[in-house]
Order: sequence, then C-alpha cells, then structure tokens
Amino acid sequence: MKNEGEEGGKELGELAIRYSNHYHGKISSIPKVPIKHLDDFSIWYTPGVAQVSMEIAKDKELAYEYTWKWNSVAIITDGTRVLGLGNIGPEASLPVMEGKALIFKYLGGVDAIPIPIGTTDKEMIIKVVKSLEPAFGGINLEDIESPKCFTLLDTLSREMNIPVWHDDQLGTAGATLAALINALKITGRNKKDTRIVLFGSGAANIATARLLGAAGFDLGNIIMVDSHGILHPEREDMDNLMVTNPWKYELGITTNKIRKKGGIQEALEGADVVIAASHPGPGVIKGDWIRKMEKRAIVFALANPVPEIWPSEAIANGAEIVATGRSDFPNQVNNSLVFPGVFRGALDSRTKRINEQMIVEASNELAKFAEEKGLSTDYIIPRMDQWEVFPRVASAIAYSAVKFGFARISKSKEEFYANALNIISKNRNIIEKLIEIGLIEDIRRG
Amino acid sequence: MKNEGEEGGKELGELAIRYSNHYHGKISSIPKVPIKHLDDFSIWYTPGVAQVSMEIAKDKELAYEYTWKWNSVAIITDGTRVLGLGNIGPEASLPVMEGKALIFKYLGGVDAIPIPIGTTDKEMIIKVVKSLEPAFGGINLEDIESPKCFTLLDTLSREMNIPVWHDDQLGTAGATLAALINALKITGRNKKDTRIVLFGSGAANIATARLLGAAGFDLGNIIMVDSHGILHPEREDMDNLMVTNPWKYELGITTNKIRKKGGIQEALEGADVVIAASHPGPGVIKGDWIRKMEKRAIVFALANPVPEIWPSEAIANGAEIVATGRSDFPNQVNNSLVFPGVFRGALDSRTKRINEQMIVEASNELAKFAEEKGLSTDYIIPRMDQWEVFPRVASAIAYSAVKFGFARISKSKEEFYANALNIISKNRNIIEKLIEIGLIEDIRRG
Repeated sequence: MKNEGEEGGKELGELAIRYSNHYHGKISSIPKVPIKHLDDFSIWYTPGVAQVSMEIAKDKELAYEYTWKWNSVAIITDGTRVLGLGNIGPEASLPVMEGKALIFKYLGGVDAIPIPIGTTDKEMIIKVVKSLEPAFGGINLEDIESPKCFTLLDTLSREMNIPVWHDDQLGTAGATLAALINALKITGRNKKDTRIVLFGSGAANIATARLLGAAGFDLGNIIMVDSHGILHPEREDMDNLMVTNPWKYELGITTNKIRKKGGIQEALEGADVVIAASHPGPGVIKGDWIRKMEKRAIVFALANPVPEIWPSEAIANGAEIVATGRSDFPNQVNNSLVFPGVFRGALDSRTKRINEQMIVEASNELAKFAEEKGLSTDYIIPRMDQWEVFPRVASAIAYSAVKFGFARISKSKEEFYANALNIISKNRNIIEKLIEIGLIEDIRRG
Repeated sequence: MKNEGEEGGKELGELAIRYSNHYHGKISSIPKVPIKHLDDFSIWYTPGVAQVSMEIAKDKELAYEYTWKWNSVAIITDGTRVLGLGNIGPEASLPVMEGKALIFKYLGGVDAIPIPIGTTDKEMIIKVVKSLEPAFGGINLEDIESPKCFTLLDTLSREMNIPVWHDDQLGTAGATLAALINALKITGRNKKDTRIVLFGSGAANIATARLLGAAGFDLGNIIMVDSHGILHPEREDMDNLMVTNPWKYELGITTNKIRKKGGIQEALEGADVVIAASHPGPGVIKGDWIRKMEKRAIVFALANPVPEIWPSEAIANGAEIVATGRSDFPNQVNNSLVFPGVFRGALDSRTKRINEQMIVEASNELAKFAEEKGLSTDYIIPRMDQWEVFPRVASAIAYSAVKFGFARISKSKEEFYANALNIISKNRNIIEKLIEIGLIEDIRRG
C-alpha cells in the first residue's frame, strides 16, 4: 500500500508537470456580460459606468450588487508552509493556490484569485491584506507558517469587514469536528467526558482544540502532544511559549487537567480518541499504542500523503473507527468538505466575519448530513462526491451569520440553501458545458 | 450635438446601472483545465501539484510556464482620480476597473484582475503593489491622482521585475504621439521645429511631454499651460513645484525656450499644434484662438465626454486636423488603442519593464499602421475596430523589449506578432462562442 501510494504520487507529479506545461496555468478570467461590438464598452466602461461608480460612492454596499465583489475571494499566502513542502516561497506556491481556486469554483461557485505575496513579515502581510478589502468579498489565508498564521487570522478577522478564513486552521478543524461528532455517536460517547489526544500541535491541531472547546468539549480532557511530548503547565518551554506562541501556551494551561506528562505513548494510554496531524507515516503511531487506548478507540490519522498509521493496522490493534486525510480510505477528513460551502455561505449572507461558533454550526451540519445518509464505522463524514453537502454547509454558515448579527443579507436557512444550490449547480454546469464543447480542451488519455 | 451627447450619456448611465444590477459584475473566473471528476484534483491540486511547486522553487521563472502568471495583470487603483469623477474611493472604482479588465480580455487576451486598494498613502501603495509581484505578470496602475502617480510609476518600474504601466499617463501619451506623428506627415512638419502647446498639465500631458522628448521632439518648442497659465522658469510657483511636483518642475525649465508668458490664448499664438487634456468643453478653447495659430493647425481636443472645442468649430476657424477622445468623431485618440497591445507584448516577451523608448516604438507602429491604410485629415490614427492593430502594437513592444535587454523571451518581431494575433483571436472566439451558446446571457434589446 505504501509503495503503491508513493508510486502513484510520483506519477501524479509527472502528469501535473506535463499538464501545467501544456495549459500554462489552471484558471482564466472571462467576461460574464455580452460584448458584441466595441460600442458595448460605452455601457460596460466609460461613459456609462460613471453612473454605477457614483451610486457606489454614495453607498459602498452597492459594490455587492453592481460588481463581482459579492462572489470574489482572494487566496493569500506568503509561501512559508506550502503543502508539506515548507517555506518554498510565493512563486512556488502559485500552482497550489491556482488549484485551490479551481476547487473554490468547482465546489463552491466562488471566483477565487490566487495572490501569493512577496513578504513574510507579519505586520506587512496584515497591511497588504487589509488594503485588499475594497476589491474582494472575502479572504482565504492559505499555507502560512505557524504561529504567524494565528496572529494573522485573529487580527484580520477583527479588523476587516469581510470574512477572513485560514483554511489550514479552520477547514481542517471544521472537518475534524464533524467526523468526531459522528464517531462519538457510533461509539456511544459524549463530548464532556471524551478523552482526546491531539498529536501534533501545529496550526491544524491548535485550531481543532480551540474549535472543540467552542463546540462544548471539555478542554481539560484534551491532551496536546508536540515534538517535545505532552503539553502541560510545568513544561520548561511554557514561559517561552507565552511569548512565541500564546495560542499554544493558552492550551498548555487549559488542557490536560490530570497533568499527564511524557510522550505520545503515555498520552494515548486510556485515551478515547487520537487526532493526529503530525507527520507522514506509517509507523508514526504504533499499533501497540493503539492497543493501550480505551475500547472502541477512535483514530484520526490525518497526515498526508501517508497517515501516521495505516487504517488496517489501527483496526487490527483495536480501533473501532479510523479516519485519514486520504480519499482512497473510508472517512476522509478533508478541509475541502468545508471551505467551499463556508465561503458560499459567507458570501451569500455577505457576513462581516466567521466566528468559531459559526464553524461549529457548519460542522454540525456536516455531521447531520452524514447521519441522514446512515452512519457506520466506515461512514462518519460526508464523501466529497455528495454534492448537496456544499450548499448545506453554505446554508449553515449563512444562517448562523444572520443569527450572530454579522450578515448584511437576511434570509431563512432554506432560502440560503436554495440560493447556494443554484449558484453551485450553475457553475458546475458551465464547466461541464465548456468541456463538452471543447472550450476547455481535454488532452488527457481516456 | 452637446445636448445629444449629454442625453446619450444619461441613458448609457441608466443602462449601466440596470445591467450591472442584473449581471452583478462583469468578469468571472473559470477553469482552463478539464475537471470531470473529483479525482482530477489529485493532479490539479494535491498530491500532484507538489511536483510543480518544487520545480518552481528551484527556478522561479518556471512560474511563467506552469501557472497563469504569463498572462495575468493586476489593475491597481486607489480610487483617487476615477474617470472624471475625482476621489470617489476604491469601492466606487471597482466597476470601472472591471470594465478595464473586460477591455484587457477582449482586445488583448489578458487575464486582468481589478484590485482597488484601501489606502491612498504613497509609500503604502508602493509596498502593497511590490508585494503582488509573485502573483502577477504585470501591473496596470489606473486612475491615481497626480503627482502621486508619477512617483508610483517611476518607483515601481525601477524596483519591480515585472512591467508596470500607468495607463492615464502612458496610454494616452502613446496614442497622442501616434496621432501627432501622422498629423505632422500630412501637414508637412518635422518633429524638431514643430511648436506644440500642451493645454492642461495633469498626468496625461506631463507624460505626453516626456514621451515627445523621448520621441525626438524639441522640448524647447513645447509650451505647457496649466490653470495658472503658461509654465516658465520664472513663474512664482516654480520653487514650490520643485518639491510638490518635480516632473512638472522639470518641464518648467526644459520647455518654452522662448520664455513665453501669459495664458492659453497667448500660448496658442503662432503654435502649430495644441494638445488639450484640460477639462470638458465646449468653449474651453475658443475658435478665435485657433485662428491665431499657424496655418494648417493641428488641434487635439481630448477632454471627455465633451472636447474643449467642437471639431466643426475648430475646422471653421482654420484647423486642418482635429482629433478628440470620442468615438463619434474622426481621429479618436484613445488609450485603448495602446494598452491592450502593450500588455500583450509585455507579457509575451516577459519583459521586466517598459521604458519610454519602447512606448515610442509602439506609437510608431500605430502611426505606421494608419499610414499603410492611407492617411487623411480624417484618419491619422487607427480606429478601434481595426483589430490587427493590437497584435501589431504587441509585436512592437515585445520586440523592443528584446532589443533593450528587458525580455525574458527572445523572438523575432514577426513571431511575436503571430503569437499575439493567435492569443487575441482565440480569446475573442471564446467570448463569441460563450455568447452564441448562451453561457454569457444577453438581456439587451435588439
């Protein structure tokens, strides 16, 4: 399995190079208004457009009616933590951000523009992103190193009046929470008493811990583990963390109420759940350790491209439910289940922000969707090909934006759902049509 | 005519509002790679895309091969001088920038993204725009107040390794120079001896003066006129200009070698050419003043929406050639003749910058194109519907980028022409096809 995965990865990489070289990029801009003659520009451009500008000058909110702002999102990265490749720079991040833009369009009907920026300075990134507020309806931060990403998300969310999202934190956390909610249902657990080990304390797991807290889990029953072992208040680096990573420090004093010490192996003893977002396996989590967990253990091994432990090994050692980040196993915990719907809903409600409680509602919606379809140990979270999930998430986010008073547009949840479904379907149909008539060329075999 | 123009403008404005409200913006993003199944994202996104990123990390220039950077331009404004509407802010500028993006696509095949930014601070704009270098293949500055626009263009052109253009300066200057070259041919004048009055000393005419100098005109034979009258070295505001507007100051000491003083009326006495970019007429230039110009006078009355003097009045008072900014008169001096081809050529050659000499070559190409079609007093500059002019301008810019050593790609002028023609035609065909099959809906009457 491991070898297969690696060979498959290599082949996919070669295809990606070949196709990238053929298509010279993955996205393009097109008019959505008819241009049949140069005279048409007297309406789309000057002199007619002056009237449109004057109306917006009187009421800025009209930019949402008269321009593409209602549907546009900037995908911002500084290239410091691209995929699993680390700090490879903004230029090298561009193909990834273009791919992200494709997913935005295909699953969420969103016009997303990749904007890798040429600075890694925190204060400068804040200034640059804030300056983009007039141009876009939302900001998606992507692949930015930790702990800088926490400051960026917190500051920009607070100071901007368009929704700001960091997918590596919130998308992964939202999908994880959804899967966990259903795993608890199947194994007969409740939020308050479940003992959870978060293995890896990067952006994803710190965000997951915070989101679990917002969702009603007891932080005291969570144990965070990083490369130095279990996080606890007496750890020698805590003073340092207070300065360098206050988000992790905060979790250091609020989690682990039994003051457990040691490493991942000790952490897992008696745990109900492990959520691993550490580094690619296999063998990063041992089968023996799983055997020391509680009965009906829940194992989320989310490292890509290879999970910390193969699902078969985890199950052979007593895990009842295993989730990974991969599409070729059951229970794929995938941020792409979350962000397209989140942005669809954020844009449709024109929300000024997305708070943790709204993400909890999106996770609940995801969990409920899977439950409606019928839960099993192999199905705790919707699959990516269950399209209706995206408008469902959109309606949850949009309606919660209304409830929290962040929305500029108020509709019922059903109306938001119908609206999102319509936009997403329409965009998917356009793409299908463009392929069908050959305007999007398909050079691939088969 | 005046009333007709005004009523027409009002009707166009109302249509622009109605259509903007229907279409909710004028541009959209689409995939240019096929997506038929979610599995396709294993190539367009992770894991396959990692290989593409790693290649670019090794050689940044590969971003031009593997991403849309080769064809993408950011349209940047701070909203301080939008059309003739002044400082209406970045939000209100968005419909204008979207219109500009449409023209970029329709005439130049360029993927242009409108990015109005939320700061008017010069240093901050410089930082923001520089930070966008990894994301885009070029920068188009637009509708930024003078004299800030001069600093921005000069600084960004010098400090960035992608081409930077300020259309309100360079586009207008390039079209003006092209028209003037042919007007001189028709009226039997040469560059060195022609006495030119530049009426209005904003961004456009300051850029025109500089470009005329680069093109071989004698700056000493140029007289600049602003709201305080003729510019000359002894004028009382010269010391102040040295600080507030060094570009204008520089022209104050290099133009007007006969040290003429007074106002526009005095300036025009004995002049061969007036290039007016002042404020909307009619009546801003009087017929009487034209009569005091040299025989076979050349009058460019470029204010929009109404020229400083109606062409019929200028001709009745002795002008031989009249040009305006309007499409409903002969000889439209239009920056849209210039920038789509300039960017096509700048992108195709992957030039690091665009200098004045390159713009002179683009103007020469425009002039030559019109000459090939047959010059007359009613035809000194190509019309917008003469499509071949855009790849011609592109080839002139691209080939001069090679000559000046700024180009990353070296081809012959003919190859650049064929390449530009192909890209522009292909994009126009896509738009036509999208309208034909109804993917771009046409709600207009008739």
